[in-house]
Amino acid sequence: MAEDGHDWAARARAELKGRDPETLHRRTEDGIPVKPLYRAADLDGIAQLDVPPGFAPFRRGIHATMHAGRPWTIRQYGGFAMAEDTNAFFKANLAAGQTGLSVAFDLPTHRGYDSDHPEAAAEIGRAGVAIDTVEDMARLFDGIDLGSTSVSMTMSGAVLPVLAAFIVAGEEQGVAREKLTGTIQNDILKEFLVRNAYIYPPEPSLCIVGDVVEAVTRTMPRFNALSISGYHMQEAGATPVQEVAYTIADGLDYVRAALARRLDIDAFAPRLSFFFGVGLNFFQEIAKLRAARIVWAERMAAFAPKNPASLALRMHCQTSGVSLVAQEPRNNMMRTAIEALAAVLGGTQSLHTNGFDEALGLPSAEAVRLARNTQHILAEETDLTHVADPLGGSYYVESLTASLAEAIRVEVSRIEEAGGMARFIAGGEARRAIAEAAARRQARIDSGAAAVIGLNRHVDPATKPSGREQDFIDYGAMRRRQIDRLDAVRAKRDAKAVTAALDRLSEAAAQDPSQPGRNVPGLLDLAIDAMRVRATVGEVSNALERVFGRHRAPSPVVTGVYGETSDGHRDFMVVRKAVTALSARVGRVPRLLVVKLGQDGHDRGAGAIAGGFADLGFEVRLAPLFRTPAEAARLALEWPADIIGISSHGGGHGELVPALMRALREGGGTMPAVCGGVVPEADRPALIQAGIAQIFGPGTSVIEAARGVLALL
Amino acid sequence: MAEDGHDWAARARAELKGRDPETLHRRTEDGIPVKPLYRAADLDGIAQLDVPPGFAPFRRGIHATMHAGRPWTIRQYGGFAMAEDTNAFFKANLAAGQTGLSVAFDLPTHRGYDSDHPEAAAEIGRAGVAIDTVEDMARLFDGIDLGSTSVSMTMSGAVLPVLAAFIVAGEEQGVAREKLTGTIQNDILKEFLVRNAYIYPPEPSLCIVGDVVEAVTRTMPRFNALSISGYHMQEAGATPVQEVAYTIADGLDYVRAALARRLDIDAFAPRLSFFFGVGLNFFQEIAKLRAARIVWAERMAAFAPKNPASLALRMHCQTSGVSLVAQEPRNNMMRTAIEALAAVLGGTQSLHTNGFDEALGLPSAEAVRLARNTQHILAEETDLTHVADPLGGSYYVESLTASLAEAIRVEVSRIEEAGGMARFIAGGEARRAIAEAAARRQARIDSGAAAVIGLNRHVDPATKPSGREQDFIDYGAMRRRQIDRLDAVRAKRDAKAVTAALDRLSEAAAQDPSQPGRNVPGLLDLAIDAMRVRATVGEVSNALERVFGRHRAPSPVVTGVYGETSDGHRDFMVVRKAVTALSARVGRVPRLLVVKLGQDGHDRGAGAIAGGFADLGFEVRLAPLFRTPAEAARLALEWPADIIGISSHGGGHGELVPALMRALREGGGTMPAVCGGVVPEADRPALIQAGIAQIFGPGTSVIEAARGVLALL
Repeated sequence: MAEDGHDWAARARAELKGRDPETLHRRTEDGIPVKPLYRAADLDGIAQLDVPPGFAPFRRGIHATMHAGRPWTIRQYGGFAMAEDTNAFFKANLAAGQTGLSVAFDLPTHRGYDSDHPEAAAEIGRAGVAIDTVEDMARLFDGIDLGSTSVSMTMSGAVLPVLAAFIVAGEEQGVAREKLTGTIQNDILKEFLVRNAYIYPPEPSLCIVGDVVEAVTRTMPRFNALSISGYHMQEAGATPVQEVAYTIADGLDYVRAALARRLDIDAFAPRLSFFFGVGLNFFQEIAKLRAARIVWAERMAAFAPKNPASLALRMHCQTSGVSLVAQEPRNNMMRTAIEALAAVLGGTQSLHTNGFDEALGLPSAEAVRLARNTQHILAEETDLTHVADPLGGSYYVESLTASLAEAIRVEVSRIEEAGGMARFIAGGEARRAIAEAAARRQARIDSGAAAVIGLNRHVDPATKPSGREQDFIDYGAMRRRQIDRLDAVRAKRDAKAVTAALDRLSEAAAQDPSQPGRNVPGLLDLAIDAMRVRATVGEVSNALERVFGRHRAPSPVVTGVYGETSDGHRDFMVVRKAVTALSARVGRVPRLLVVKLGQDGHDRGAGAIAGGFADLGFEVRLAPLFRTPAEAARLALEWPADIIGISSHGGGHGELVPALMRALREGGGTMPAVCGGVVPEADRPALIQAGIAQIFGPGTSVIEAARGVLALL
Repeated sequence: MAEDGHDWAARARAELKGRDPETLHRRTEDGIPVKPLYRAADLDGIAQLDVPPGFAPFRRGIHATMHAGRPWTIRQYGGFAMAEDTNAFFKANLAAGQTGLSVAFDLPTHRGYDSDHPEAAAEIGRAGVAIDTVEDMARLFDGIDLGSTSVSMTMSGAVLPVLAAFIVAGEEQGVAREKLTGTIQNDILKEFLVRNAYIYPPEPSLCIVGDVVEAVTRTMPRFNALSISGYHMQEAGATPVQEVAYTIADGLDYVRAALARRLDIDAFAPRLSFFFGVGLNFFQEIAKLRAARIVWAERMAAFAPKNPASLALRMHCQTSGVSLVAQEPRNNMMRTAIEALAAVLGGTQSLHTNGFDEALGLPSAEAVRLARNTQHILAEETDLTHVADPLGGSYYVESLTASLAEAIRVEVSRIEEAGGMARFIAGGEARRAIAEAAARRQARIDSGAAAVIGLNRHVDPATKPSGREQDFIDYGAMRRRQIDRLDAVRAKRDAKAVTAALDRLSEAAAQDPSQPGRNVPGLLDLAIDAMRVRATVGEVSNALERVFGRHRAPSPVVTGVYGETSDGHRDFMVVRKAVTALSARVGRVPRLLVVKLGQDGHDRGAGAIAGGFADLGFEVRLAPLFRTPAEAARLALEWPADIIGISSHGGGHGELVPALMRALREGGGTMPAVCGGVVPEADRPALIQAGIAQIFGPGTSVIEAARGVLALL
């Protein structure tokens, strides 16, 4: 009998019919223990538990009144096709009650290519809006007052020309840059780590971040120069501790870069903002957001700011894209609602909720509307907003917050001791750790150990894997219009002025970027000068590339984890045996080349396939990112590969895959090729026509894919 | 500065730009204060806060391990058309992962009418499955093993013949009654209070409850004889305190009735179960479920049970039907997900989640599937189940739990001092209190003070008020088949044996029911004898009605509250003025007769319209429930009414409304009639054809309805 007269363990054992209650203890993905019961004693030793919201370390939220004083901002991210298409979408959203704008740019814009660049052709306006010029930016915000509407821009690679275009568009709308409100992501470190939308190598890229932070801090008091993003890490497979620790470590590198430019900590730190993903693991995600605030406040205290706001981690959250399932996509509405609730209870300042059909492509109008309604219902119908940090004091939530904070602290310290996040990323360990977490999760889904309703449990026999048929944009016509416009801008401008502005930019870039506070104009201001005379995004980007070069990264295959996690699972063993048998029969191990084409850097799926196939006994090469179809064909022919796997998430497969197949056949290659990722139903016949042997839709397990590939060999 | 160095109020005031943080304090519907911030000190003085789950008073749950040991039971309620239709539905649900069955019976069955009774005709198989005989019951469970499948039956009025048919069906399947598992609702008090599916007057009805409790307790050890239901009170508009206090008070009456039959408290109390609704007010609903357990345990302690399980309030929950909105019905998927999460966090033992389109009629197959998936996602994808009572210790949740428990205690004491719930209901106060709460809420929605997304906020201009078109059952053909079957059973049976069995039932009923423990066979056993020789549900019911009579209740109009809550709201004032002007012009106040036809007892809508129109200046009569079309026409003609408002929620309007209109015209009545409630799009043309002047769909505000009516006068 326990001291207080309640022998919980005895009663638990009775309920479990004699099984030890210890068997109910679990560990999170990060290895943090979770008990079946938390009681008051679990709070013993947790420091600063009762510090109210609004006070460091902000466990309970960064504002004293939190959502009771002001609900979170509904900020839906979006962008597609041409500027006027996205403009109409923005206007409809604002009319429907959205309280801020958030721009998704297309992949060529991220990577600094104009819409007429040959390597950009297939992806113009696909996964975001195409922006080449100030004219495009003006069209994007036509009829939207930039003096009163806050605009968030997810842009890190081509931050200079895009932010410059935004500032000039504001100027020409009559809104001075001092008056602009919003955020530019400008977080290049996570691009090197997971998202791959970088342009230049790390060192000059970090110099650009610092330049933008300095310029915005000094001249745009209502604008945020950095949104430090863990979201994409979670999407790539990071655990909660990885997501938060790496993001905080990214932030610390940026803070040091800003301080090196002699900026006052209190001038920029209060305007830093963070961006996290929120998945389905309800309490873990809530505790993660609380823990992130604690660790950030502790780390920032080391810089001795005078303004307490410099310690506060402000955040935007987005519900998890990777938790969306293509099978029975309406289930995603409930998933997103639960995730949104976790973000709110975790104390977010703003929130994006995903559309239910986004696992299949761009969200439909209905999905956009229902996603926004999810937030309206939470904010207006549930009375959730009346109390600040309603979960504060919960034995479980507070314990989990403390455990996560401690694990994050340890990881941040390790990175700091290794010299900071930039160096840690360069060493490859972070990328590998995330890939391993992703492989572990993939293996658990494939084996059924992790439930995904509609995919591996409670599957609806009536549902088709993909419910979306329409492709409502004529991308070919759109691209021709976009290029015509670009030509028109080029024809009308003062070519000499453009060349001069671009040359000045190249010259400034060539100065030693490690010289902070040097006496030359900042890169952002020079980019603004160039955009003002109608240089294009691609030209400004290229002026810098001339000096900095373009970054090329290796693509190592992370092996071992998928196989280890799947070991003993029947289907895995059967397929592995089949691969061994095939190898014995043919006299060598079958070779798989995994490629991604064009500017699409979403490589979680490619990495999972590569690692999983390697663990099944294939010899696997993962091609470096951003291959042209011809380059990919050459890699396959030179090895030679026995099979090619193409992973597509950027929507460009319709042109890129047939081009690859042509190049392959012209080079005499006869090996089969398969395709996976986000391939809408409507695109499939053309790929089959082009010679693709099989198409694996979203949710296909590694085992299923391997079975399909084996059948072809 | 506060003692701990954190001047929260000062910071809050700064955030509010000088506004007093006191302005953030609110009160719940029950008048319970809610502060914008809760801290550790708010837990001071809360008794037994750290008692673990599994121990009285069960604040943290009735089981030690709660959902960590075993997740809640997914128990979806359903029933429609004929037994074989519902049987197919049950089998599909079981195959899809549902873990228990829950039967919805049609209104005639509830009210003790066979399918060939003239007053039942329009509603056979409409809002539930039609069951007349043991044969029907056998068909309902054809291929489903009653020895291993737990069955919940929502049946209180006709509890004797229906439970008897179930027992005989089990017997004939080879499962003795001792082996049957499940629950019979058998909660007649809430029928008199809100749901109106009673048959006999209160005193004999309570005698039947006691008889069933006694028989089940003595002979069916795996079956629960009572499910004490607050759900229908919430649906009728009750506040959380009303819902729980009235339900607990109902339970106490039943406990006393069982004790009066010399049952041992520990023989029946552990098998009582409760049923609550869970709405959108997230934390209030969680705290309500926790508070209910505390107060029940305290009250049950007074009966000095030896088994601690006698103190434990076991519960089933259902997401709120009244929170479903017909406008943009897909929004209901998010609403239901949030409500389901609240039920889980409140510690429910089993759960029903509503289909998103149920505001429009029977749920579609897709809605049924998505509703069940909501629970699968919560149970299997969110890691919610790993920790017992995850919110335990939360300053806010624990404070709110304590406040609600205290308010419930006060209300239960008041009822107990008034002589118990049966007497309290007879006095009319409880019914009026719920009607007032409903009127208050309706007025707040109508004025826009309470948000309903899609209805009064963020309305989609593209959406139609009703998205459902299909009526996939041919009710006419179904009824003919059902009556043929009934005739066949009657033709084949031993008529003398039936008459003898029914006579024995009447004789036993005629014994003084206040004589507990009397030495005659119990009513349930006599009903079983009768069903075994193929008496019908209607015949058994009628054998008792011969002795007990049929209950008729008055329908008072609850006035004042709607007008008071709306006072000053522009639209309300304008319409009231128009009514006054009309009265002055015509020389008398316009008269509205509100009627419900057939066996449909869902009278929240009728009550809201009656009270609201009275407060707008109409003279209103609310007809007693269960009128035949001819009776309703007579009431309108005799008064005479200037307009008739028909409220339909049972699906019988297709026959009942045209019959009323014919009777009206035959009697020379020329006044217009309007219709409201759940009227599917497909039914509308026939009603207009029958002479209905206007149809008000779900979500119509009282003001809108009044405008429509004024236009007709």
